[in-house]
Amino acid sequence: MKVGILGGGQLARMIALAGYPLGLKFIVLDPDANAGAAGLSEHLLGAYDDPALLAELAEKADVVTYEFENVPAHVAEFLSSHTLVYPPAGALAVAQDRLLEKNFFRELGIGTAPFAAADSLADLENAMADIGYPAILKSRRMGYDGKGQAVLRSAADLAAAWDSMQGAAAIVEGFVDFQREVSIIAARSPSGEIAYYPLSENRHRGGILRIAECCDKDPAQSLAEDYVRRLLEKLDYVGVVALELFDAGGTLLANEFAPRVHNSGHWTIEGSETSQFENHLRAILNLPLGSTAPRGYAAMVNFIGGLADDAQLLNIANAHLHLYDKVPRKGRKVAHATIRTDSEAAYRAGLQQLADLAAAADNS
Amino acid sequence: MKVGILGGGQLARMIALAGYPLGLKFIVLDPDANAGAAGLSEHLLGAYDDPALLAELAEKADVVTYEFENVPAHVAEFLSSHTLVYPPAGALAVAQDRLLEKNFFRELGIGTAPFAAADSLADLENAMADIGYPAILKSRRMGYDGKGQAVLRSAADLAAAWDSMQGAAAIVEGFVDFQREVSIIAARSPSGEIAYYPLSENRHRGGILRIAECCDKDPAQSLAEDYVRRLLEKLDYVGVVALELFDAGGTLLANEFAPRVHNSGHWTIEGSETSQFENHLRAILNLPLGSTAPRGYAAMVNFIGGLADDAQLLNIANAHLHLYDKVPRKGRKVAHATIRTDSEAAYRAGLQQLADLAAAADNS
Repeated sequence: MKVGILGGGQLARMIALAGYPLGLKFIVLDPDANAGAAGLSEHLLGAYDDPALLAELAEKADVVTYEFENVPAHVAEFLSSHTLVYPPAGALAVAQDRLLEKNFFRELGIGTAPFAAADSLADLENAMADIGYPAILKSRRMGYDGKGQAVLRSAADLAAAWDSMQGAAAIVEGFVDFQREVSIIAARSPSGEIAYYPLSENRHRGGILRIAECCDKDPAQSLAEDYVRRLLEKLDYVGVVALELFDAGGTLLANEFAPRVHNSGHWTIEGSETSQFENHLRAILNLPLGSTAPRGYAAMVNFIGGLADDAQLLNIANAHLHLYDKVPRKGRKVAHATIRTDSEAAYRAGLQQLADLAAAADNS
Repeated sequence: MKVGILGGGQLARMIALAGYPLGLKFIVLDPDANAGAAGLSEHLLGAYDDPALLAELAEKADVVTYEFENVPAHVAEFLSSHTLVYPPAGALAVAQDRLLEKNFFRELGIGTAPFAAADSLADLENAMADIGYPAILKSRRMGYDGKGQAVLRSAADLAAAWDSMQGAAAIVEGFVDFQREVSIIAARSPSGEIAYYPLSENRHRGGILRIAECCDKDPAQSLAEDYVRRLLEKLDYVGVVALELFDAGGTLLANEFAPRVHNSGHWTIEGSETSQFENHLRAILNLPLGSTAPRGYAAMVNFIGGLADDAQLLNIANAHLHLYDKVPRKGRKVAHATIRTDSEAAYRAGLQQLADLAAAADNS
């Protein structure tokens, strides 16, 4: 079986590493000659919407998946008309548009921050009467890691914030007074089988995920599972999904979902019986899903902008290194490391050591 | 860093899978166009002793290792004169010759079965007076998985057994009345750091390893560690080694050692904090060795000659599949599966299910 992947970065790389033991082969489409998955797969070098390369991908792959949600609709349609594409195009359409996404959550009975569409400065001004300050203006499409966003602290910010959208349709969202950010990762197969991972508790800085910790037996687990199940079933979803939630005193408010393997689930490689990467493959191949039970305590630390010295990092007991074969530059995710142990004290100590190394290496 | 590997089969494949997260790239030399590591590495296609390909391997690789011990001496010498080669050539020389190997054990004070050289039928007849029946005649060089061996039950067997050696220098070994076969896998780095895995208890059938179980806190652990430490230090060894031992009522008798990652250590991928494959790489790159602590109960089952149905196998709770991308044929190792759990009862049940699948698939 050959799995095609749109995108050949670190997510494709980790999918391929999980897939070889299952006897799979891979073909990726990526414009970067040095894409991280290139050495592990047949590499179609070119643009994501190159018609000839997409035709080749559809021809050679038994099933196609992707490592980013901003797959153009016509690309997803073309691929879907020639081969299996999972997750389904309908999930892409919703995930690509923050307004559709928030309306979708509302339709499913999943709480969100207050929000409104803003197609003009006048819309924005009107909406703020209901939403209140502070709030955040986001472009409906594209943007990640805090890009394409503007904070609104008072009416004086509105005009500049609107200008920064450069005419793009936008959504304005009220701030949520939350205690923590969590995400739930789940996999669903074509048979309807669903596997839920333990919640991740996620810490961001500068709009970028820094640390994700596995939360075994979390009080919010069952509500999060209920929410992500609604989403999976409504979309007739196949593959791994990540649903990001704000935990506001036991009330969970959905922020967004990613129709793909997710950075907040990288700890599952060591910290769960079956990684999110393997379960994504099992799901899209309609194989039985693997156990998502945690293996002790586990967390992941991202390396942004710079790397730690390998030997220093590997000297930390029970630390695991995951390099992406990316050249470090400001703000770029270049690696992650996992800590996994059966002892809570060793876990806390190791996580602190990893976080210190990541902070020292960070030049963003 | 680029790691060169002589041989591109399943061991090279699993080394490469362990090495990508460490940021490594691979180049393998293998005469099989469909070698299991081919998709994961640059593949030099040709004979193991092809001078031009060996020169290219030495030129491109920062360090060269191997997945089989029968590397011709002149090949190891050539590579060693051009690049780093680990484990060292001295270990190969001993491991390739059963007589040198047994003498080496004796020199280190490590017990063995009674043995004697047999360079002729007359030698063999003389030796049997001391060794006694039953015994086993083995060619000094080559042979694995029970090949190149003849059992001696009485003097009547000697002439035919000697003829079966086809003139090759041989060694005769007395049978050992042992309770079980175990192996210890250890890694040593150039700095002299050594990491020991928990013992594996190994079950063979037809001369081929079938099942290897991780034995945490085994009574024989400390003696086995002492033996393998003597071997590692005497050889100034770098990399992973496997020492196979017979356990005869608490007395450990060395059978042989393999200067490479070993089939009896495949359970370490899931069952230990750091796999033998990753620790082999850490050792040959002089990085700190990773924890070898077991993660719960773990065992590996080999699939010989045939495969199980993927979905059936992956339906077993906590089972992990490792396909080698090899076409099944009689007697050929084509995959292994691991069972890993924190519950002993679930472990026993899962191991039995895997063993049943392997037995049903075995056409040898």
